[in-house]
Amino acid sequence: MDIADWRRRIDELDSELVRLISERARCALQIGRLKRNSGMPVYEPERERIIFDNIARQNAGPLTQMQLRQIFERLVDVMRQIQGDEMESGEANAPASGITELEPRD
Amino acid sequence: MDIADWRRRIDELDSELVRLISERARCALQIGRLKRNSGMPVYEPERERIIFDNIARQNAGPLTQMQLRQIFERLVDVMRQIQGDEMESGEANAPASGITELEPRD
Repeated sequence: MDIADWRRRIDELDSELVRLISERARCALQIGRLKRNSGMPVYEPERERIIFDNIARQNAGPLTQMQLRQIFERLVDVMRQIQGDEMESGEANAPASGITELEPRD
Repeated sequence: MDIADWRRRIDELDSELVRLISERARCALQIGRLKRNSGMPVYEPERERIIFDNIARQNAGPLTQMQLRQIFERLVDVMRQIQGDEMESGEANAPASGITELEPRD
């Protein structure tokens, strides 16, 4: 295979990556909606630790754990960003009372 | 689906992402070897422009173009890093004469 062949393969992989990352973003938005309804925070360090543990366990190279993690850190950052946007937009549309009124205040 | 269900789906997507990113890294290493043998540079802005154009064209949301690009910028950075490492390690192992001796100097 020459450079052009490898680049064609990379372009195919990128198409698939765009598809999977977009589906992951849709999942994150759904979680954002559920979190909003239950008053949960966007940032959950324990969940992010599990994500990084999972990818490290599945890494068989050639990337080092640090290199793979750098990629997923950016991915998780962007996902947290869209989840936060989704939760804020939901709050803006919700009635002024909000879900917290259903809970005891003291 | 509750939050746990969406997270299970995200974990599946992450496994698949690790697999595809690792394959992309293997392609980048192969290209690094071919570049080394033909004296081409690691950084090729025109090729990177094509990669970003491709992913933008395939993006059907929910991520914005900027958000998707942020993820791929990190991915491309890491790929450039392993390609550079591969080319340097190859140079260290190559005979001192190197490939350039095969080409006319003037």
